[in-house]
Parts: sequence; C-alpha cells; structure tokens
Amino acid sequence: MTLTHFDAKGDAHMVDVSDKPATARVAVARGHIRMARDTLDIIAQGRAKKGDVLGIARLAGIMGAKKTADLVPLCHPLPITKVAIDLTLDADLPGVQIEATVKTTGQTGVEMEALTAVSTAALTVYDMAKAVDRAMEIGGIRVVLKDGGKSGRYRAS
Amino acid sequence: MTLTHFDAKGDAHMVDVSDKPATARVAVARGHIRMARDTLDIIAQGRAKKGDVLGIARLAGIMGAKKTADLVPLCHPLPITKVAIDLTLDADLPGVQIEATVKTTGQTGVEMEALTAVSTAALTVYDMAKAVDRAMEIGGIRVVLKDGGKSGRYRAS
Amino acid sequence: MTLTHFDAKGDAHMVDVSDKPATARVAVARGHIRMARDTLDIIAQGRAKKGDVLGIARLAGIMGAKKTADLVPLCHPLPITKVAIDLTLDADLPGVQIEATVKTTGQTGVEMEALTAVSTAALTVYDMAKAVDRAMEIGGIRVVLKDGGKSGRYRAS
Amino acid sequence: MTLTHFDAKGDAHMVDVSDKPATARVAVARGHIRMARDTLDIIAQGRAKKGDVLGIARLAGIMGAKKTADLVPLCHPLPITKVAIDLTLDADLPGVQIEATVKTTGQTGVEMEALTAVSTAALTVYDMAKAVDRAMEIGGIRVVLKDGGKSGRYRAS
Amino acid sequence: MTLTHFDAKGDAHMVDVSDKPATARVAVARGHIRMARDTLDIIAQGRAKKGDVLGIARLAGIMGAKKTADLVPLCHPLPITKVAIDLTLDADLPGVQIEATVKTTGQTGVEMEALTAVSTAALTVYDMAKAVDRAMEIGGIRVVLKDGGKSGRYRAS
Amino acid sequence: MTLTHFDAKGDAHMVDVSDKPATARVAVARGHIRMARDTLDIIAQGRAKKGDVLGIARLAGIMGAKKTADLVPLCHPLPITKVAIDLTLDADLPGVQIEATVKTTGQTGVEMEALTAVSTAALTVYDMAKAVDRAMEIGGIRVVLKDGGKSGRYRAS
Repeated sequence: MTLTHFDAKGDAHMVDVSDKPATARVAVARGHIRMARDTLDIIAQGRAKKGDVLGIARLAGIMGAKKTADLVPLCHPLPITKVAIDLTLDADLPGVQIEATVKTTGQTGVEMEALTAVSTAALTVYDMAKAVDRAMEIGGIRVVLKDGGKSGRYRAS
Repeated sequence: MTLTHFDAKGDAHMVDVSDKPATARVAVARGHIRMARDTLDIIAQGRAKKGDVLGIARLAGIMGAKKTADLVPLCHPLPITKVAIDLTLDADLPGVQIEATVKTTGQTGVEMEALTAVSTAALTVYDMAKAVDRAMEIGGIRVVLKDGGKSGRYRAS
Repeated sequence: MTLTHFDAKGDAHMVDVSDKPATARVAVARGHIRMARDTLDIIAQGRAKKGDVLGIARLAGIMGAKKTADLVPLCHPLPITKVAIDLTLDADLPGVQIEATVKTTGQTGVEMEALTAVSTAALTVYDMAKAVDRAMEIGGIRVVLKDGGKSGRYRAS
Repeated sequence: MTLTHFDAKGDAHMVDVSDKPATARVAVARGHIRMARDTLDIIAQGRAKKGDVLGIARLAGIMGAKKTADLVPLCHPLPITKVAIDLTLDADLPGVQIEATVKTTGQTGVEMEALTAVSTAALTVYDMAKAVDRAMEIGGIRVVLKDGGKSGRYRAS
Repeated sequence: MTLTHFDAKGDAHMVDVSDKPATARVAVARGHIRMARDTLDIIAQGRAKKGDVLGIARLAGIMGAKKTADLVPLCHPLPITKVAIDLTLDADLPGVQIEATVKTTGQTGVEMEALTAVSTAALTVYDMAKAVDRAMEIGGIRVVLKDGGKSGRYRAS
Repeated sequence: MTLTHFDAKGDAHMVDVSDKPATARVAVARGHIRMARDTLDIIAQGRAKKGDVLGIARLAGIMGAKKTADLVPLCHPLPITKVAIDLTLDADLPGVQIEATVKTTGQTGVEMEALTAVSTAALTVYDMAKAVDRAMEIGGIRVVLKDGGKSGRYRAS
C-alpha cells in the first residue's frame, strides 16, 4: 500500500483528480478542548450573559474551513457549499465538544476542511481562555463521517 | 476572573498591548497524531526511502505558524523570529509526536503560533496518510513551555 | 422573517447551498468617495498626466472582489468569471463615482463580491489621497442590480 | 500639492518610511449601514435572543483590520496592537452605527486599518441581512480621529 | 491586435469568461536557477543525505500555484485539479531545472498557475541557498505546453 | 559550508534571528521578460494611450513583495518600509526590464522581497500579454545590491 500524495519517484504532488466526476460530498469531524472546571464555568457564564467564546470559535472554525487548501500543502482547493459547527459545553470533560459538518460538490472529499474547522475552533477557544488557563489541551480530532465519491461511506466505529 | 478578550460590555476586541514593552518571547507546544501500526510503517519506510511525510508536515507547520493571526480572530500579528518543528515516529503511540518551538521579540506571547504550527503539521500528516487510514486521531495539543513577558515562565507539569 | 445565516438555535453557519443549481449570476454595486474640490483636481490632473489614482483603485477593487469569501465570514467561496470596475470623476459630488460588475456561474449570488470591489476601490482612493485630504468620506455603497438564481432579478429603485 | 504615493515620474510606489521613528499611533473611523426598520428589528431581536449579527460583524471587522495591507495596494504592513469595534443599533437611521479604534507603534498611521475595519464590518452586516433587505446602503465611512506621527492630531470637525 | 485585459476605454478588467464552456485544461511551464558549481554540490549532497532543498522548493511551488489568482491581479480563480513539479539537478547549467504541470477543468487556461509554480519553486531554492551564493540567477521561465480551450494546443518550438 | 535553513539533523527550520539587531536593510533585484517585437509595440502604445500594462505590473510587484513570507516557506515575515519598482521598455531585448528596491528595518535582509517583487511583476506582464504572445520568457532574476546586517554590502559584479 502506498501514499497517493507521492509519485513513483517518491516526490510529493497534488494528486490528479481531473478525471473524477464532481459528486456531492459531506464530511463530519469532531474534537474537543479540555480545561479546568473553573475555566468552563467562566465560558458558560459568558455565554449566558456576555463574552461569547463559543460564538467566536464557531466563526473562526467556519472561516478556517475556507483556508484549508492554503494551510494543507497538497490539498485541492474546493468550493465549499456548507459549513456548520456545533460547540457544546461538556461538564464531564470538562471542556468544549466541537463538531464540524462540511459539504461540497466536487472531485475530492472535504475531510480536511472539516478537520481544519474543528482544529481552528479549538485553537480559538484556547486563545480566548488562555489568560485564565494555560493547561488546556486540544484532542480527539478525527473524522466521524465521510460520504460521496467512489470510496463510499465511512463512519467511525 | 474574566476573559481579557472581552470588554466591560462583553464585546470581543483585540486586547490593547500598546503599552507593553517588546520583550524576547518563546513558546513550545506539543501534540500527536495516532494511527494504525501499518500506517506508521508506511510513513517510516517513506522517510527512509521516498515520500517524506514528516518533511512535508514540518514545512506545513512552519508556514502555518506564520498564518496564526489570520486564523485566530483576536490574535495579534507578530513578526516571528524562529520556528522549528520536530516530528518523531513513535512506535508505542503508534503515531507521530510533534513539537514546535516559536520565538519572537514582541508585545505578546507566541503560544498561539506554536499551537497552530503543531495543529497544522498534524492536519498535514492526516491529509497525506488518509488514503490508507481514515481513523487517525489528532490529540494532546498543548503548551509545554512559555517564557518572556510580565507573566513570566510557565512550564507544563 | 428570519435571517438565513443562523440556524434554529441562533448559531451562525454557512448556509447549505449544495442542492441549488449552478446558474449564471450577475451583480452590480455602486458607491462613491466624496472629497474636497482641490483633491479632485489633483486626482484629475494625475489621470491626464501621471499618477493614476483611478487605475490603481480599479485594480485594488478587482483583487478585492477575489478576497470576498476571506473577508466576509459566512460568504461562500465562488469562482468569479468577470469583474469590471468603472471609476468616474464627478465634479458635482465632488469626488469619485464607483461601479463594479461581477459575474459567476454558481450556486449563490455575487452581490457581496460587487460590494467588496466597490468598498476596496474606495478605500484605495482614500489611501492615495489622504496625504492631501483627511476629510474624505466613503458612502452610497449599495447593490443596484442582481440577477440569476431562484430569487430572480432585483433592480434598485 | 502632490500625492506622495507617486514618484517624480508619476509611478506608484510604497512610500519610504524607513527614516521615520516608530511612534504610538491611534486612529478612529466611523461609518454606518442604513436599512429598513423591519430589518433593524430583526437584528435587534436576534441580538437579544439568538443570531448575533453585530457580534459577527464585529469579529469580521477586527479580522479585516489585519488584512488592510493585503487589500490596499500601497499600504505598509503594520503590527497592530489594538482593534476595538463598536456596533450600535440606531433606530433613527434606521440602521447600525459602526466605530473602529486601531492602535499601533509604527512608522505610519493606522487610518486605513480603522477604515477597513468599519468597511468590513458593514459588508458583513449586509451579507447577514441581505436575504430580508437588498436595499441596505453603507455610508458615512470617514476618519474621525488620528493621532501620533509628525503630522500630529487630527479630529474631524 | 489588442490586449484582452483592457476594455475599449483602456481600463483593466478581469475578462468575462462566463460564456466559455468548462473544458479540461493543462499547462506545462519550465524554468531554472543557475548557481555556482559549489552551491549545486551542497544541494546535491543534502538531497542524498539531509537538508532536502528540492523537496521544499517542490512543495513551495505546489502551494504557489494555488496562490496564482491572489498574486496576478487579473487572473481568474480556478479550482486546480493537479499540480506536479519536477526539480532536477543539472551539472551543465550548473543549477536546478524546474518543470511544473498544472491541470484544471475550467473556463480559462492554467498557464499562469504553471508559471507561478515554477517561479515560486525557483525563489525558494534561492532563499535556501542564498547564505552560500548570492549570485544565483533565475531564468528561462516560459510555457512549453498548453492544451484545452478553444485556442487549442500550443507547444513551444 | 552548510545551508543555514537546515539544522544538524538536516531538518528544515525558520532560522533563529532573535538575537540579531534590527538594522536598516535594502535590497535591489532585477529581471526581465523577453517578448516578440510586436508585443512590445502593443504594450508601448497602450502605455502612451490606454491599457497600462506596466502600471498594473508595478502594482502587482509591490503587492507581491508583501506576500513574500507567505510564498517562500522559510522566509521571516518582515514589516517592509519601502517598495519601488521600475519597469522599462527595452527595444533591444526586446521586452521589459524590471528593477525592484525594497527596504526594511529588521533582523533579516529583504533580498527575497525584492526578488518576489520582480518575479510577480514579470508574471503579471506575461498574463496581460499572453493573448498575443505565448512565447515570452522571464529571466535574469537576480540580486544586484544588498546592504545592512552583519554580512555587509553586496553588489553584483
């Protein structure tokens, strides 16, 4: 088994997708940022009253999805047709659960866009809460669903 | 305790650092991407022979650090003076360990640049290996060292 | 009536346009920048002889149209197929009248691209003339024509 | 009087500021977006309950300020040290009043950054409300205060 | 014969390609960077052992191709479907030969993308070797093949 | 002699310049684009009358200089303080001669910015004239002067 991002000589290239049909694609990625319970409380209070950390992280994630091909070197540029990001306070973590859904009609999938959205949203939560908690940790970033294209449907077990 | 990224009304702003002196700053962040053992083997073989996944992820991480203020909404733009990224194959994980060191002489710290470098490098590994392994997971992204500025030295316990 | 950029919970998202057909779209936006008569004269002389403020503003506007999805958070990225910008000296204003026409074949309209083109061209005129006139004012930025897509033709009254 | 953005031959250049000292700079710009009263009511309700148009426009404006040198061709890149944006519902307009304050310590002023922040915030309000009101109009974009640098303090009359 | 990038008044515009069919397009561009023989030897040794100048230049070229519409003012944004870049050490030059192949399915050609890829790869080689050789020279950047679209096949003689 | 962009293991990094003093820097780069005599005539006529190819290329070069750190992977971001670009019609070439001068006060030099400015200006001339001449060739891109920093003054022989 070989990595498609390298040619026969081992040189990196952006894979030729010219002959693939443009089909409807969707990908869902998840991740989280773990923090001290006090930090979670501060974010939760702000949400209710003022200082909307989750709203800002959501927007950053949406804009991050649009920058994916600029960040990931061998990623194809794609005209995204939908991005939605769910951020949920999770008292058990404690921290914030993040889920991003991205769609396109294109020749390649949108897993990277969904992962980049989650990752950018998590980095933004870190940025906004770092003055009160430096020990936050971002993790669990993975694809949970991918559909469209000839490789078919993938759902994380 | 309040979040400095919001003013008294709860509105987000880019914090005023005009009156802070420009001092030498350093931040180190870590993270990893976990994968199937077979995926690790493919990457390891490529490293030795051809198809340098880690080299490409390193470069993506360095370039990602330069895009931090573009990705993270309330982050100050900073003239980075150093970025180095270590990617190590870890057979126990199994996967790749990532560590980024960023320096600047500026009015704010470079934690976000170090975290963005790690995150972008991890996303790039995912992109390059996703054709053989969709279940990879990015995690453990955190600041392990931060120094410079009036808040002093922080080392993760 | 509700704003489509928010979901049922009130969270912002990039609206799903996956199921909309790609149709021919056009939008025309207008705006102006008002300035002192002396400033207008300096620009007018430069146009004839040297120092082409309008030419530079036109180019900035065209390039600005291509950055729309990067500037406006919930805007879909679109493959623009035409941008033309008219800048006219208006002695009565006094100032510069700006009109931008943008076309695409896509799933959403190009009003935002046309408005961003006008706005960027106006900002560029301000930048180039601000050394002689700080009191210039940008205004009248609006959509005057929009066509294509299921909402049909709109022409400002 | 001549435009400093052109040299003796009339060719555009980025003005040489190498010999200017880096001083504390501030600029405040204002603008507005006028809309139907019904549109204002929808935005006002969302603010209270869900669908925070003003919060999203504020963030877009802050990020827009960071893109100024990328949008305005002859503008110097500057390390911004503060951006704050006030958006106020104005029932008399009716519409939204926007004010942006930008600071830096640098060799040139930040008027363009403040104007770009206002302009980007206004474009974002348009984008979010355009499904209910196409006739909105952006205007009144001007510098109201500028201080720092050898040209001294400017306050709009 | 006239330049299509200008309208009847001589004003620059992004040419209207709305009515052109989206067809398969390919372009191949070439160029080189000439250097001292010692510099070539250092790069050659690094390739074999460590310090992969060509690998980094290749990646920079691929990412550069994706930025073409951002760099070249009147260039249409295009969803690239393939980028491959060959860098070859040429002892006779002495220096590095560069060839880029770019594909898309679109309404305009991809010559500019191929030329930008070559140019960015060459600049990156310069950057990496400039500490040992300031007299390197980039040249021979040209289109060698272009196909697709109504103007048909072009092959450099 | 080794390449400073690689560490002891041969891994690429952005070189640490934290301890270098910020000094006044200047770099001048040159290049050209060769074309058919007829193409040169068309550009020359446009310059006099309408369709200012050189003015647009100049602006593209200035904006390109600002994107250098985004294009060249290991390049440090720098606050440029001056960019000027001279484009001259050369009947003997035949074609266009390009010279870019860039200044900064910083910890590293601005050769890459000057080279990127020349390269982007040349690509833009190609783009604007390619409809009438596909065989144009970009060449002679080199540093002719560099000053400031501890390595001192360099002037191409």
